[in-house]
Amino acid sequence: MDDAAELGAKVFVFWGGREGVETDAPKSALDSIKHTRDALNFFCEYVIDNGYDLKLALEPKPNEPRGDLYFPTVGSMLALIATLDHPERVGVNPEVAHEHMAGLNFMHAVAQAWDAGKLFHIDLNDQLFGRYDQDFRFGAVMIKQAFHLVKFLEDVGYSGSRHFDAHAYRTADTADVKAFAKGCMRTYLILKEKAAQFNADAEIQALLAEIHADSGDQADVLGRYSREAAAKLKAINYDRAALAKRSLPYERLDQLTVELLLGVR
Amino acid sequence: MDDAAELGAKVFVFWGGREGVETDAPKSALDSIKHTRDALNFFCEYVIDNGYDLKLALEPKPNEPRGDLYFPTVGSMLALIATLDHPERVGVNPEVAHEHMAGLNFMHAVAQAWDAGKLFHIDLNDQLFGRYDQDFRFGAVMIKQAFHLVKFLEDVGYSGSRHFDAHAYRTADTADVKAFAKGCMRTYLILKEKAAQFNADAEIQALLAEIHADSGDQADVLGRYSREAAAKLKAINYDRAALAKRSLPYERLDQLTVELLLGVR
Amino acid sequence: MDDAAELGAKVFVFWGGREGVETDAPKSALDSIKHTRDALNFFCEYVIDNGYDLKLALEPKPNEPRGDLYFPTVGSMLALIATLDHPERVGVNPEVAHEHMAGLNFMHAVAQAWDAGKLFHIDLNDQLFGRYDQDFRFGAVMIKQAFHLVKFLEDVGYSGSRHFDAHAYRTADTADVKAFAKGCMRTYLILKEKAAQFNADAEIQALLAEIHADSGDQADVLGRYSREAAAKLKAINYDRAALAKRSLPYERLDQLTVELLLGVR
Amino acid sequence: MDDAAELGAKVFVFWGGREGVETDAPKSALDSIKHTRDALNFFCEYVIDNGYDLKLALEPKPNEPRGDLYFPTVGSMLALIATLDHPERVGVNPEVAHEHMAGLNFMHAVAQAWDAGKLFHIDLNDQLFGRYDQDFRFGAVMIKQAFHLVKFLEDVGYSGSRHFDAHAYRTADTADVKAFAKGCMRTYLILKEKAAQFNADAEIQALLAEIHADSGDQADVLGRYSREAAAKLKAINYDRAALAKRSLPYERLDQLTVELLLGVR
Repeated sequence: MDDAAELGAKVFVFWGGREGVETDAPKSALDSIKHTRDALNFFCEYVIDNGYDLKLALEPKPNEPRGDLYFPTVGSMLALIATLDHPERVGVNPEVAHEHMAGLNFMHAVAQAWDAGKLFHIDLNDQLFGRYDQDFRFGAVMIKQAFHLVKFLEDVGYSGSRHFDAHAYRTADTADVKAFAKGCMRTYLILKEKAAQFNADAEIQALLAEIHADSGDQADVLGRYSREAAAKLKAINYDRAALAKRSLPYERLDQLTVELLLGVR
Repeated sequence: MDDAAELGAKVFVFWGGREGVETDAPKSALDSIKHTRDALNFFCEYVIDNGYDLKLALEPKPNEPRGDLYFPTVGSMLALIATLDHPERVGVNPEVAHEHMAGLNFMHAVAQAWDAGKLFHIDLNDQLFGRYDQDFRFGAVMIKQAFHLVKFLEDVGYSGSRHFDAHAYRTADTADVKAFAKGCMRTYLILKEKAAQFNADAEIQALLAEIHADSGDQADVLGRYSREAAAKLKAINYDRAALAKRSLPYERLDQLTVELLLGVR
Repeated sequence: MDDAAELGAKVFVFWGGREGVETDAPKSALDSIKHTRDALNFFCEYVIDNGYDLKLALEPKPNEPRGDLYFPTVGSMLALIATLDHPERVGVNPEVAHEHMAGLNFMHAVAQAWDAGKLFHIDLNDQLFGRYDQDFRFGAVMIKQAFHLVKFLEDVGYSGSRHFDAHAYRTADTADVKAFAKGCMRTYLILKEKAAQFNADAEIQALLAEIHADSGDQADVLGRYSREAAAKLKAINYDRAALAKRSLPYERLDQLTVELLLGVR
Repeated sequence: MDDAAELGAKVFVFWGGREGVETDAPKSALDSIKHTRDALNFFCEYVIDNGYDLKLALEPKPNEPRGDLYFPTVGSMLALIATLDHPERVGVNPEVAHEHMAGLNFMHAVAQAWDAGKLFHIDLNDQLFGRYDQDFRFGAVMIKQAFHLVKFLEDVGYSGSRHFDAHAYRTADTADVKAFAKGCMRTYLILKEKAAQFNADAEIQALLAEIHADSGDQADVLGRYSREAAAKLKAINYDRAALAKRSLPYERLDQLTVELLLGVR
């Protein structure tokens, strides 16, 4: 951390690859949680005491190299942070591949981190679900999922580092490693343009408007609680038949999204 | 909730099976997070305003019946709770099958919930990783994992409901449904006895003592931060060769655990 | 089968959704294999005896609605067929979603079926790995994998039915179901054009030529066995350093493939 | 192979860890299948021509170290073997961990190999579903699945090598590696005794007899085809209500199995 501060780093990433178990017999999971918290509290106070302008970003991973790692998902790291002495100092560094290993929707995890003000850093790469840590080139195997991620980051105005934590195939020579590195960036930028195109596409936006036409009605009710709001909510007569008739053209919208991705719009 | 309060329920379980997507095109994940939070805040204030002695327990699930559900894991639910207006009112209802669907270590998730004071309820059943929601009889397919869960609940003194949210095979008639229900309870109780046996087994406890013999040394240092503690930590000379030589008989301990489970100790 | 023959069907698909177990205690897996084989032999002879112009196509699935289904993958069905009395009558009906449930490369499975002359039918849809049976619109979630599948079917000249065994989202009304059905077909046709574009793309083809430039050398040796061929093989001095230097621009080629899919070439 | 023959080996295991892809763009899956077959045919003829008393056992694995390996499951290897010039020379070497990586029922795969006369060798270890290749001590994480495997091997009288292809935890010193190796063997032998106990348990055997009481009726019909048998089959009036009433105490049997495993019977 002294080195990081000296070099002017603003974010210090922790990946606890050692912090897990192959067997639950020897260790207390509770103690492991406490030790992790104690260590993070210790580091935070060290940073504060030294006046370093440094934030901590925790990187979750479900398994590998250990059988099971503690705090395996973005959600569990966010939950840990909420129990720290200095939660404002600590955020997450979500990685596509790690969340995909657990078969989870990465964009949803990033959205939760963003919502909590905790998206301090991000590791972009790619990975099929339920596999060893593949660390593929960004966008290499799950294109649509990469699109929704890029769209999210651009729509909310994420201004942090877009860090490609990926590895070229072992067959790659120097030229191919360069193609790989450029590929990560090119695919991000292509998807960024697609996100802008999605936001500007009249047919897509009309569908979205149609889908969300009456969303506001409920938001009025489901705003802050009051006795009046509760009474209003209870008084609503949800007409199942009418609700079921309400057109929700999700297939049409999703198909347009796929066609936009395929470059035929 | 009115009904729950009238019936004297102390815990109200929410399972948001509808709250997800098959496609990320029509919905904003951020809005969905906010709507969920707004709704939970609303319900909490309703409960408080009505003076109900009722707590809320959120039950996460990664997918099914929706393509991806929001707040897919115990960790992500705990993280959500930390952002609520009345976090003390809200906890989790972890379910074995749901966490196993994402291939995660269920006991670790329960430990994190317990550590946060949020284990308000629990759904016990069984499930293989990476499958549809199987809801098998408790302990039916992953025996060792069930043991570590029971041991955790008994060791920490969990006093809440042990709720079996499982389904008998579709072949079951009334007698077999009863065998199924008894089986859930019998297996829990057998594993509870095994947990006590584990805690009383001299060879196992000696191994644990050996494994943790020097754990205290580090805890001294890694306690609360102070400049002295930091200086002490930096001054430690970690001797890799010596550390690597330190015996950690995890295989022996894990094998004894398996043999205890198999009833041959 | 009588009905199928009367209606002029040429392929009769078997999906053994019932043929599995939730527990291995009551059934002998060996007997189950034998019963399946006996039944298929019986059906084949019935078809032959009746002079029906009907072939059988077996559809594998790893699980759901049963805990584990027998013959869970395309490979295991192909292996079963080889043990039948009339293997020439029986082939497979691979389904994208089913192979994806086991996290397997679907195109590889289809290639093995094609190689064995057993691709009698195909079920096209989409699915994320390690989940319940999602049956999404073709190309809806794993675009690149769908591309390689379409490219394979078109390149080898598969002339059988392209059957979309998918389901619209439950939100869909009639108009959206039509959008869904058209979407399956549109995405197939778009990817078919992309496959033709891949085959005609000069830069891509030049890369492929470079990659396969010396493939023929080894094929010469690894053709049919003869004492001379074996001697030749043993005499080859594989120069690891030289082999490692051989450029294999897979990253560059894969990135071009992604860009072709994204419509920016 | 010359060395293997000289050393008196009877089985030569092939694990094609290199034979896969990270991207399907550069390679033809069909060519890869053909190359594998050509190579195996070549090796078989070499063995025959040299008069070696050597059989080949192919070991499938779904992924890792490559993104996707060809012939990823026991089924796909069995299917490949059926297309070889000398199928009688070639069998499989199933590995628990590899089939578990794809979330498949390992015992079912072994049963199919046994049914085909192809269980030439077996690799015993353990592994959770949908993870990196964990190679745990036999029976370490999925006890019930290990039991059904051992029961199968003992019941059919498998006389081949019981090969433990597992690795001790990285924390293990020499004593712990020995505990690990003994543990593999001990757990196998304990489960072998449990299998004998299962076969001798009066209550379990009575349940099995009850479950299979009328299995013979259908076997009579579903034996070899004849016009008479077909007529008989068509004439059966399956009474759904009566069939549904037929008691199938699978929960009771499975619970007894679990209790037998836990050593409380």
